[in-house]
Amino acid sequence: MVKRYILTPGPTPISEEVLMEHARPLMHHRSPEFSKIFIEVTDKLKKFFKTENDIFILTASGTGAMEAAVTNSFSAGDRVLVASAGNFGERFKKISSKFGLNVISLDYEWGDAVNPEDIKKSLDENPDIKGVMLQFSETSTGVLNDIKTVGSIVKKYKAILIVDAISGVRASDLRADEWNLDIVLGGSQKALSAPTGVAFISVSPKAWKLIEKSNMPRFYFDLLSAREASLRKPPQTPWTPGISIIVAMNKALDMLFEEGLENVFKRHSVLTMATQKAIEKLGLELLVKDESKRGYSVTAARVPEGIDGKELTGIMRTKYGVTIAGGQGKLKGKIFRMAHLGYFGIFDAIIAVSALEMALKDLGYKFEIGAGITEVERVFMENNYLNT
Amino acid sequence: MVKRYILTPGPTPISEEVLMEHARPLMHHRSPEFSKIFIEVTDKLKKFFKTENDIFILTASGTGAMEAAVTNSFSAGDRVLVASAGNFGERFKKISSKFGLNVISLDYEWGDAVNPEDIKKSLDENPDIKGVMLQFSETSTGVLNDIKTVGSIVKKYKAILIVDAISGVRASDLRADEWNLDIVLGGSQKALSAPTGVAFISVSPKAWKLIEKSNMPRFYFDLLSAREASLRKPPQTPWTPGISIIVAMNKALDMLFEEGLENVFKRHSVLTMATQKAIEKLGLELLVKDESKRGYSVTAARVPEGIDGKELTGIMRTKYGVTIAGGQGKLKGKIFRMAHLGYFGIFDAIIAVSALEMALKDLGYKFEIGAGITEVERVFMENNYLNT
Repeated sequence: MVKRYILTPGPTPISEEVLMEHARPLMHHRSPEFSKIFIEVTDKLKKFFKTENDIFILTASGTGAMEAAVTNSFSAGDRVLVASAGNFGERFKKISSKFGLNVISLDYEWGDAVNPEDIKKSLDENPDIKGVMLQFSETSTGVLNDIKTVGSIVKKYKAILIVDAISGVRASDLRADEWNLDIVLGGSQKALSAPTGVAFISVSPKAWKLIEKSNMPRFYFDLLSAREASLRKPPQTPWTPGISIIVAMNKALDMLFEEGLENVFKRHSVLTMATQKAIEKLGLELLVKDESKRGYSVTAARVPEGIDGKELTGIMRTKYGVTIAGGQGKLKGKIFRMAHLGYFGIFDAIIAVSALEMALKDLGYKFEIGAGITEVERVFMENNYLNT
Repeated sequence: MVKRYILTPGPTPISEEVLMEHARPLMHHRSPEFSKIFIEVTDKLKKFFKTENDIFILTASGTGAMEAAVTNSFSAGDRVLVASAGNFGERFKKISSKFGLNVISLDYEWGDAVNPEDIKKSLDENPDIKGVMLQFSETSTGVLNDIKTVGSIVKKYKAILIVDAISGVRASDLRADEWNLDIVLGGSQKALSAPTGVAFISVSPKAWKLIEKSNMPRFYFDLLSAREASLRKPPQTPWTPGISIIVAMNKALDMLFEEGLENVFKRHSVLTMATQKAIEKLGLELLVKDESKRGYSVTAARVPEGIDGKELTGIMRTKYGVTIAGGQGKLKGKIFRMAHLGYFGIFDAIIAVSALEMALKDLGYKFEIGAGITEVERVFMENNYLNT
């Protein structure tokens, strides 16, 4: 028997309570029973984003929500600015190009954060930019972009701000309205810790003005159809939604609010810090060098010289039952990514670092065995928000 | 306590076995454990469609698969033929128009079937038609189109044939390859009886030729990306899929093959016949007049004069706990639709008709109470395939 642990940045571990809700016999999506849950989830997702903007639930993975943001907001030929510091920044560029947008890109080293001043400069130089797109947490590197500052800049221009917060929101604090975020994207399978397959998108009044003017062909992800369906009594989705996922999300949202969003954030930050200090204690180098730019969803670290990243994560998975993520795109094989995201507690951090230690030892890497997990314990006890 | 039964044409009743699989802790979508299931499900879906064509799993509801068929196969300005005999035929027209296609439509009364000869005539008159789209089972009326004949016609032209078989396949027999169907759409939540949120699409070599030439902008539903991901070792989806739904589908597919596809078809046909004879016994009129054109997924019947359809289904749901569907589009309030689809047995048919009887009685409709359920029993016992 190998007992299995999934410690990746989506899917995340899911609580038994949420899985039990997920397994309830399905309600019909036009029934009053489901409508009640649908209204509740929509309201809770507003609190999840800290927004009073409209929010829509899409049955798709996060990439579908990224496409929805692009095809609803713009028309072919529109100029947009994409700030890219990793694999998901590149995805915004690909989607925008596919749909015929005129993309200006700000590219950063993978591991660096987006510099908000560059966005300001680009907006000043290109007054026809209709939208700015970037990630909150860039899942491929673990960097956290300073969206608050970006929001304070973009609000002064006619451009709207589209933030892919899928892996970042609620592991790190995000305040959609206070920070002036026009379109924010989230997913069921990250800090929310529900099963994969549903995404959600918030839309500000400033964004609606663009959406109402956009002539981009779209149907399944059309937000005007979603708005129309949401205004029916009772509110609905335009097409059959992922019912069992939305029901699971309702329970997962309750659990987050019961814990308290502030505590959720503290939990993620302490477990991130403990994991990162442990990795450094093992002599490994974190990908995001600037500590102040590290997010609380996932930690990326470079694989030691002479060791193949794929072999490292392979041993962790097959021999010890612990699934973490490898590098994406140009970082494939060069880094590993350990999430501390969602239904994730201190012993998940211990398990992740313990499996890492044993696999590194198996591969002949030299370090003091136990140093990492000892550091996790030490940092956790020093910073445990439950003690304060 | 009101015990609840969901007897709608999607979502359908789901077996406890499938719900338990659905509630398993999530596997990572790039792990060997999930890859094994993903390969299995893809292979089983080929048997489900009776095809050796490529098949792709999309995380979306059926409407997303309809959009995928349209945006992958054609380019803006292409001429297509849509044969529409209900709400979902209309949806093919709407999607095609949204994406700039030049739509020729063959429109039929809701309750009638598409006449294959009309398709032949239209193809002869318009040799530039690139694709023909229609439903197998039109869920809004319960009619079953003669796709076999349509397939034998369209194969002689350069046009491809796109069949929305979402609610029809495996309640009624469908043979994608034998019938020359180029693109076939299916969903997780119909005869397959898994939760909502996943669709699938098969693609013939003739369709691939069009897809490779299409210049329609698309990203999330791009089948070339799906094909590329499916050719990786191990095969993958391009984006994070609805993992827990696919895992549930694997179990649901096993159950169908264990029963045997021929028995699945017989079960659906006997329970449909029993339900339809019972409804007629109550003095109600079936929407599809021609018995030979009725499918085995859902039965639509006209609400008796003086009774409001919404009130009828409302009483069935609130007072007796039985959810069936009402009319869609222009049939709203005028018909009710009772499914006999998926994980559905003789006593589900009894329950549906019994709740109908009691609600009709509550609304003052005059008939002999018990006549319907007696007829269900009688027809079932006369035709029970398990006895043969």
